[in-house]
Amino acid sequence: MSSTRDIDALIEMMAKLPGLGPRSARRAVLHLIRKRALLLTPLADLMQTVAATARECLNCGNVGTSDICDICTSEKRANGELCVVEDVADLWAMERSSVFKGRYHVLGGTLSALDAIGPQELRIPRLIDRVATEGITEVILALNATIDGQTTAHYIADQLDGQVRLTSLAQGVPIGGELDYLDDGTISAAMRARKSV
Amino acid sequence: MSSTRDIDALIEMMAKLPGLGPRSARRAVLHLIRKRALLLTPLADLMQTVAATARECLNCGNVGTSDICDICTSEKRANGELCVVEDVADLWAMERSSVFKGRYHVLGGTLSALDAIGPQELRIPRLIDRVATEGITEVILALNATIDGQTTAHYIADQLDGQVRLTSLAQGVPIGGELDYLDDGTISAAMRARKSV
Ligand SMILES: [Zn+2]
Ligand SMILES: [Zn+2]
Repeated sequence: MSSTRDIDALIEMMAKLPGLGPRSARRAVLHLIRKRALLLTPLADLMQTVAATARECLNCGNVGTSDICDICTSEKRANGELCVVEDVADLWAMERSSVFKGRYHVLGGTLSALDAIGPQELRIPRLIDRVATEGITEVILALNATIDGQTTAHYIADQLDGQVRLTSLAQGVPIGGELDYLDDGTISAAMRARKSV
Repeated sequence: MSSTRDIDALIEMMAKLPGLGPRSARRAVLHLIRKRALLLTPLADLMQTVAATARECLNCGNVGTSDICDICTSEKRANGELCVVEDVADLWAMERSSVFKGRYHVLGGTLSALDAIGPQELRIPRLIDRVATEGITEVILALNATIDGQTTAHYIADQLDGQVRLTSLAQGVPIGGELDYLDDGTISAAMRARKSV
């Protein structure tokens, strides 16, 4: 008999997930135990599968199940437009809005003096390489309207100045706002009204 | 190549958990994928274990890993006091307060005319049986201070009237308040100041 140690350990691990605290983790685990066959076992199986198959795209940083993601391998997405985002959640938010038909580049964060995150810690060297080799005609800087996001956008704009058309999302992104919080319509409007940097 | 179907399915399933919505589920899944080895795989393993071992105590309705739970099998907890709670989260909240040394009875909900939940849908017949056979001297009705919780407490008090000392949590439980939201100190105070029904 293993007592309730495993259940306690499961609650503790769930409580570490973003958006969950100890109380909601307890509720979630009780819910999962009640729906053992319908929810807990399938969820565990799916997690095993994702743990075994999910990986970061070596080209753009998107999350998928192959070394190069579906968007990077799709010829239809090779329209010369490259949308630079901070993380995969932002890429997903852009995809939900269905407004962008080109490819992405996921930086994996923003420049931050405070956290000692420089260009080498992000995918900025790879971005510069892609612009030089992938026939990119426009780079859309779809970074969050935060100080770090805008600092990063300016740094990239400096690096790519003169090599490519540089634009950023315009109308609709509120000051201090994060892309992943915006509704799809707002993202669509901001993309359509994008302006040169 | 399985594309990102599994990742989407995982997000969808996580979004069904209490406390998580689509956005926090996406954040949680990205976090899990980033911490594949440290978090996702161990979490999946733990879920498999809990799915295989967790069960409801046949006596009291607590969640554990054996047919009869640790509290029901512990002789130290056989002090004649039986604490009736709505669900396992409430039992856990009582245990965290460490104020109660007896045994529990988990109803599995409250009476509700609206949802057609009668005594037979809860563990009320089993409660009456336990009071008659387990040497119970006091039943503490630790139900939530909601209308359904108090209706249920009154129903149980009627059923057990004259057979046993009946008390309920007193001081500290706010009107409309739910046990699982209270801090440990409040629960301790309410238990110490319990009064006869
Ligand atoms: Zn890619
Ligand atoms: Zn039990």
